Amino acid sequence: MPDPIAPPHIVYALDLLGTVAFAASGALAGVRKRMDLLGVIVLGLVTATGGGVVRDVLLHDTPPFCFKNELYLYLAVGASVLVFLVPRHFERQQRALLLLDALGLGTFAVIGTSKALVFNLGFMGSVIMGVMTATCGGLIRDVLSNEIPLILQREIYASACVAGGAAYYLMHHLGVPSPVRLTVAAVLVIGIRFAAILKGWQLPRREEL
Amino acid sequence: MPDPIAPPHIVYALDLLGTVAFAASGALAGVRKRMDLLGVIVLGLVTATGGGVVRDVLLHDTPPFCFKNELYLYLAVGASVLVFLVPRHFERQQRALLLLDALGLGTFAVIGTSKALVFNLGFMGSVIMGVMTATCGGLIRDVLSNEIPLILQREIYASACVAGGAAYYLMHHLGVPSPVRLTVAAVLVIGIRFAAILKGWQLPRREEL
Amino acid sequence: MPDPIAPPHIVYALDLLGTVAFAASGALAGVRKRMDLLGVIVLGLVTATGGGVVRDVLLHDTPPFCFKNELYLYLAVGASVLVFLVPRHFERQQRALLLLDALGLGTFAVIGTSKALVFNLGFMGSVIMGVMTATCGGLIRDVLSNEIPLILQREIYASACVAGGAAYYLMHHLGVPSPVRLTVAAVLVIGIRFAAILKGWQLPRREEL
Repeated sequence: MPDPIAPPHIVYALDLLGTVAFAASGALAGVRKRMDLLGVIVLGLVTATGGGVVRDVLLHDTPPFCFKNELYLYLAVGASVLVFLVPRHFERQQRALLLLDALGLGTFAVIGTSKALVFNLGFMGSVIMGVMTATCGGLIRDVLSNEIPLILQREIYASACVAGGAAYYLMHHLGVPSPVRLTVAAVLVIGIRFAAILKGWQLPRREEL
Repeated sequence: MPDPIAPPHIVYALDLLGTVAFAASGALAGVRKRMDLLGVIVLGLVTATGGGVVRDVLLHDTPPFCFKNELYLYLAVGASVLVFLVPRHFERQQRALLLLDALGLGTFAVIGTSKALVFNLGFMGSVIMGVMTATCGGLIRDVLSNEIPLILQREIYASACVAGGAAYYLMHHLGVPSPVRLTVAAVLVIGIRFAAILKGWQLPRREEL
Repeated sequence: MPDPIAPPHIVYALDLLGTVAFAASGALAGVRKRMDLLGVIVLGLVTATGGGVVRDVLLHDTPPFCFKNELYLYLAVGASVLVFLVPRHFERQQRALLLLDALGLGTFAVIGTSKALVFNLGFMGSVIMGVMTATCGGLIRDVLSNEIPLILQREIYASACVAGGAAYYLMHHLGVPSPVRLTVAAVLVIGIRFAAILKGWQLPRREEL
């Protein structure tokens, strides 16, 4: 997804790493639901690329990023096939997957918000594009698995993207240089997500009704 | 969503009112499903704006309306937070919410059909754009809540939009002036929806099979 | 969907036939889920046109095909109403429907891949566009029916489109003339699908985990 902002190589590397991590989470969900090989690949693909595709359709930058640079597609398919072949190996690496997933979350969110700013969106729009880039893939994964999406229920996840997107937006308008604001915002998302996992942070929820 | 048709202020006011009503219905569904604060906001947002976003993507008028005029986003988020804070208050106002929902239904349907005509769609396309504008938000709400969408099952709801869209299309081609056809078609949708609620009208359904 | 490739009349005829078959499968699912008349029509419509609409949005060819040539919409609505009126008649014709569905599958897949090549997509992108054109309608049908999509689980279905799309892509780059590669690829998809039905072919699936 790096084309419009020419981010440093490190962002591109994190983006590819996040793609692999997200694909693995989708493929694992597919294996758990007893899907066949193709179902597992489809679930890995949409989890890894769904968020960026939705963002690019809404921002009108089509064909979406992964059809311009097919490396994303190959990585997602490759990771999904690997998960299908040795699912138990990935199941045992839950902690590493959670770590990579958090890296992907921060990277995707920051890329989404920065791209929204290139397209002149306002504050809400830019934050929402960051959240969507980072979470729509997982949301489609859960819908296709016939589950209520985790991000609507779970401990701090999408909310970390809201914080990171808002921080990025503010830094952008304060004139903070691009590499700095990319780094700070991504670290913020990843840090909040890590803290939430370690401390079990949750957003409030109504128990009545 | 008013940009391409320059509708009278009354349509814009109804559009905003409908946005609030749809957001409240989405947020209430989120509270009932025990979603956290962010899940409730997401559900409110997609219910309020999902129909117009889908329409704008299909008509190729991107970024969609609510990213051009963020007032829609602020209203939807505000209404969702309010529902999260005092859900029982809203539960008790079911009748008022049903009324506002019907106003939103008629307004969204007519805006959708009129925008489709600006983009030179035919009869079926224009009617479908009206129906989608009015119902896709609720449809996404139900999919994310892991329910079969209400509009596919329930008493006269989307069908009222079909009637209103068809009437708008005919009036447009008969040369009826814009304010008149907007009003007549919206009143038609709202009237059918009210009558359906009061009289318990239903569309036929097969019980065999 | 034939505009950008000017395919022979036979492709257009198969495309319309596939539209009717897909609409019937969607409408039957709606009747089984006890949806009302409008719900049955909506399910028929999205099953028949959803794949092509998603493809056109991603390829940025909007409004999507069926809003440019409303014949697709009329056929889908007509078939859905017919299914609603005499559902038992269609239930009894399962074998004929399966046959028509396979014809539609091959036609939609080949049209999707060939259109992707017109838009200069690469190998993965072209294959994915073929698969999406042929299967996204059924996928949306299943999501709206609150089921895990069949194509993620079932015997060889989407995988036949992968084979056909890959074959089409290769023939395109080998300079095989358009009518020949259209025919060969479509026959490949339909043949694989038929063989899978007759022989009960399945893709592998993990039983552990």
